[in-house]
Amino acid sequence: MNTLGRVFRVTSFGESHGLGIGCVVDGCPPGISVHLPDLQKEINRRMATSVQHTPRQEADRVEVLSGVFEGKTTGAPIVCFIENRDVDSSSYDEFRYTPRPSHADYPRYVKYQGYADHRGGGRFSGRITAGFVAAGYFARMIIKNRQDIQISSSIVEIGGSPPEQMDCTSLHGDSIGGIIECRTHNLPVGLGEPVFDTVEGELAKALFAIPGIKGIEFGAGFALARMKGSQANDQFCKQGEKVATVTNHSGGILGGMTSGMELIFRVALKPTPSISLPQGSVDLRTGEEKSITIQGRHDPCIVFRALPVVEAVTAIVLADLRLRM
Amino acid sequence: MNTLGRVFRVTSFGESHGLGIGCVVDGCPPGISVHLPDLQKEINRRMATSVQHTPRQEADRVEVLSGVFEGKTTGAPIVCFIENRDVDSSSYDEFRYTPRPSHADYPRYVKYQGYADHRGGGRFSGRITAGFVAAGYFARMIIKNRQDIQISSSIVEIGGSPPEQMDCTSLHGDSIGGIIECRTHNLPVGLGEPVFDTVEGELAKALFAIPGIKGIEFGAGFALARMKGSQANDQFCKQGEKVATVTNHSGGILGGMTSGMELIFRVALKPTPSISLPQGSVDLRTGEEKSITIQGRHDPCIVFRALPVVEAVTAIVLADLRLRM
Amino acid sequence: MNTLGRVFRVTSFGESHGLGIGCVVDGCPPGISVHLPDLQKEINRRMATSVQHTPRQEADRVEVLSGVFEGKTTGAPIVCFIENRDVDSSSYDEFRYTPRPSHADYPRYVKYQGYADHRGGGRFSGRITAGFVAAGYFARMIIKNRQDIQISSSIVEIGGSPPEQMDCTSLHGDSIGGIIECRTHNLPVGLGEPVFDTVEGELAKALFAIPGIKGIEFGAGFALARMKGSQANDQFCKQGEKVATVTNHSGGILGGMTSGMELIFRVALKPTPSISLPQGSVDLRTGEEKSITIQGRHDPCIVFRALPVVEAVTAIVLADLRLRM
Amino acid sequence: MNTLGRVFRVTSFGESHGLGIGCVVDGCPPGISVHLPDLQKEINRRMATSVQHTPRQEADRVEVLSGVFEGKTTGAPIVCFIENRDVDSSSYDEFRYTPRPSHADYPRYVKYQGYADHRGGGRFSGRITAGFVAAGYFARMIIKNRQDIQISSSIVEIGGSPPEQMDCTSLHGDSIGGIIECRTHNLPVGLGEPVFDTVEGELAKALFAIPGIKGIEFGAGFALARMKGSQANDQFCKQGEKVATVTNHSGGILGGMTSGMELIFRVALKPTPSISLPQGSVDLRTGEEKSITIQGRHDPCIVFRALPVVEAVTAIVLADLRLRM
Repeated sequence: MNTLGRVFRVTSFGESHGLGIGCVVDGCPPGISVHLPDLQKEINRRMATSVQHTPRQEADRVEVLSGVFEGKTTGAPIVCFIENRDVDSSSYDEFRYTPRPSHADYPRYVKYQGYADHRGGGRFSGRITAGFVAAGYFARMIIKNRQDIQISSSIVEIGGSPPEQMDCTSLHGDSIGGIIECRTHNLPVGLGEPVFDTVEGELAKALFAIPGIKGIEFGAGFALARMKGSQANDQFCKQGEKVATVTNHSGGILGGMTSGMELIFRVALKPTPSISLPQGSVDLRTGEEKSITIQGRHDPCIVFRALPVVEAVTAIVLADLRLRM
Repeated sequence: MNTLGRVFRVTSFGESHGLGIGCVVDGCPPGISVHLPDLQKEINRRMATSVQHTPRQEADRVEVLSGVFEGKTTGAPIVCFIENRDVDSSSYDEFRYTPRPSHADYPRYVKYQGYADHRGGGRFSGRITAGFVAAGYFARMIIKNRQDIQISSSIVEIGGSPPEQMDCTSLHGDSIGGIIECRTHNLPVGLGEPVFDTVEGELAKALFAIPGIKGIEFGAGFALARMKGSQANDQFCKQGEKVATVTNHSGGILGGMTSGMELIFRVALKPTPSISLPQGSVDLRTGEEKSITIQGRHDPCIVFRALPVVEAVTAIVLADLRLRM
Repeated sequence: MNTLGRVFRVTSFGESHGLGIGCVVDGCPPGISVHLPDLQKEINRRMATSVQHTPRQEADRVEVLSGVFEGKTTGAPIVCFIENRDVDSSSYDEFRYTPRPSHADYPRYVKYQGYADHRGGGRFSGRITAGFVAAGYFARMIIKNRQDIQISSSIVEIGGSPPEQMDCTSLHGDSIGGIIECRTHNLPVGLGEPVFDTVEGELAKALFAIPGIKGIEFGAGFALARMKGSQANDQFCKQGEKVATVTNHSGGILGGMTSGMELIFRVALKPTPSISLPQGSVDLRTGEEKSITIQGRHDPCIVFRALPVVEAVTAIVLADLRLRM
Repeated sequence: MNTLGRVFRVTSFGESHGLGIGCVVDGCPPGISVHLPDLQKEINRRMATSVQHTPRQEADRVEVLSGVFEGKTTGAPIVCFIENRDVDSSSYDEFRYTPRPSHADYPRYVKYQGYADHRGGGRFSGRITAGFVAAGYFARMIIKNRQDIQISSSIVEIGGSPPEQMDCTSLHGDSIGGIIECRTHNLPVGLGEPVFDTVEGELAKALFAIPGIKGIEFGAGFALARMKGSQANDQFCKQGEKVATVTNHSGGILGGMTSGMELIFRVALKPTPSISLPQGSVDLRTGEEKSITIQGRHDPCIVFRALPVVEAVTAIVLADLRLRM
């Protein structure tokens, strides 16, 4: 199921080493101004925010194939397409039948009976998140248009250290992960559709589509499990004319709905599974154990590049919830 | 949106102090044997697993209104209904316009323009999870029927301590939360529908429908963000004829699909927001700040009662993913 | 799949000879005034509009189990339930394995592997349309509330004759069908979501859920296939301040969207398949041909009783499309 | 809502005079052999089956951008794209604010607030059905692969006459419509998901997405409304080992499910609304009545070209229902 959302719907398509990757955005209202260089800027931001970024120097150019006319959305489906260039798939043949540890390779092989495109991770590559970013651009335009909703994200921890302490140069073929925090201001009260389409639930589902995310917590999150109710509860007060809370341990969500306070969550990213150390695998044809080594330089840390993706996915979910009101 | 799932679909309905609560289960295959006393047993398990459980002594009797014939599912929608009894709503009038901190009251009031049933938390009461448990019974029958899939859960932490150390007697009107771990054995390889309907995403979305859950992590979860790739990666090996991994930091999920290893996740529950200490609120009619005190005895710790709910929701998601294969 | 609609969603449940039948209405906005005697009146209208109506004298009493509070919808799911009474299922045992011609019996047996409830047609009985009527009541309240949309229906033909010529007394155990026309006034321009969720498509899909409907046409329908473009085209004109068309061969729909003209369609109902003449069947256990005779008095003509059902289903679709705008 | 289907899902995109049109096919199983020249052949068949076909000589070349690897489907979304060439949009500026009778122009203008792409009918052009044909190719491969299901269609009537009597040369700028019959052999018993996702309902909804279709009937259809039950009922018999019916007035559908008999339906196509005679319109900016004349040669009869489209849409629906079993 490659479609997310109920009113603002994003369909992801494409493979890492096929002709290209992209997305279809359906349910975007007509009349939203679209500035293509801004869309391209978001794509660029995902490409190379890491100092130690991936050596694949794809000059990702995004094209809008439909749904925009005279600089504005038309209400019809918007297709964004990014061609794949400079693709060298030869190094992936080695892993076609010997799955790389902590990659999608093994269950993908079983589930798709060997027919999936394995090159460069195929459909399971982090590259498909460029399509999320493209869709996120339109989502941001919607929520900006309707209310001045602002999404920002930052790295809280990287490789177990505060972000300013990171030194990727000494990884020697190993990799690190990190924790990203995302905050959204100016949300209206009452976004979210209980009982199942809660703000937490919708965001969590969407964010777990980003390869490498293995945990999410809202507000004080896991720390709440260690508080007393008297500490954890966010008491109400007035802030000018607005109903607010004194603390915000709830992360801006009560009963699955936005409370009007800042929306706060954190996601945990595991270290990139592509490392250049020898690892144990199994040949899926012969059933024999086998040691593999992933050649070439890989991004030792995708945390920086994940920031615009986390924001884009957040925007997609919030736009969808906003349009459902 | 009160429906969850794509093939095995659960619709939740009812309010805490209305006529009753329940669920509709659609998409259940025909011919599944149903033993009503077993269904009732799951409902009972949710009612009173806590030593210090809620004083509302509801003898929840579940009725099956449709979809079962001659002791077997028919393939038609199954409706389970649990009547509300011994309901005293008088104490809730006080909070109709003065929202209780960290409850759903405030955004519910705004979103539903004051028309929502506020009594006993109404639609946002933990009581609706009895409907999840009923639906979960049928889900378990399906996954047991198709493969011997076993779901179990346990408390990892309660009020910040190991579960055996808990002492609820000294809470003096305050409350505590905790962390639950859930494990599932014998899953086939390849459950989960990337890119958006991942196992993590589908489970997370469903579990956040349980009131009080504020975080989820799969496998090593947040700890993965502090590991190197060489530590985090789960190397492959053979276990008899089966492809397995030496470690299971991934919690049985790779690329959003089950890997055949044990599925492991933990959820964080915040402390029950109903505490008997005075708390700050705002009168939504006059806009004035006001102190409120929640009367009566409330469950100071819902963590025990949440165990069968977490298992039921897990079963619902796994049955849905299983039927999609 | 027993759920219809995207925003205003109706889930049907129940069997003809089980505990009861009903519906869940999800997505109904809060604050809609509900007058239960009016809901009951619609149910009554379906029960006995035929002079020669079905001899089953079910005093259908509709109960609202959830979603209504203090006389208004709350925004939560509304469950309507109608208990089955005076049910005598003995006469149906004969047909459990010998399917009645032009009933659902045969494919139901195959599809549900014999587990479906066969009594009284079970899930495939016309009786389930009482649930549609209940849901339709809420749909009407919505579209009335938002705009003064009026739905009416009439019989165009019955047993091949104009409705005033019908004489059901001389059918001698045989049955007749008919054609119903439905008209809706005061629709806004632009309902319908092309390309797939057109007004025609959404109405057609929903109406074919009414047992016995085998054809539908919009505006001039099949007659359009015999016109020249110059005759068929509805030229535009002004009617006061409003853009209108001189003719309305399109039945109020252009490009799958409402045009603001009267919405007009006709549906063809086949004759009731329960007739008391001997008919050929096959014993599904032995594979032998067998003659069967359906005992008892059955409704020889359901066309009258179908009127409130057609209107209810139309209201459900229009409310859903209206809430999507 | 530009997506159709539940398991086999088709998303349509593109505009008549934009960069191109196409579709995304999601839910296609892996391992289906794809022969691109066969796909192109279907596209060609739609282009020019009419003797008097449209003068726009688009050499439609279909490209598959994703989802196919080494000649087989991978299980990932398949994107088909057809570039628009030789587009001259100048003649459409005249109708931007003066809607053409019986086209989508007027409600499109209102619904999309003037932002829709009007050129060549934009999103509402018959041209988008080329995307349906592309998706239909994959659907056919699925149903052929699983069971030897064969779909064929023919013209029953054209311009009110039997097809062999048609003479389009004497239309003098006017247009004609027609009736198409579609038949499908070898369907398994029990396709269709009552109560709402019936075979009739799913087919009807999908077929009304084809511009110009205004009516549909299954089996004997409207004629059934004029039969007695004793004539209409399809009595059961044995045909070799198979349960069959003596007649097939039901068109292969009982209770919304396939009966194993031939699936038969007819659709009515209205005459092409583009005619070169002067017609009444209204200027939507000034509100003044205005006569318009549609210049250039247009296809006076789309009935021939609709045949592969009707078959493709039928295949899409049947593949979706087949994969749901």
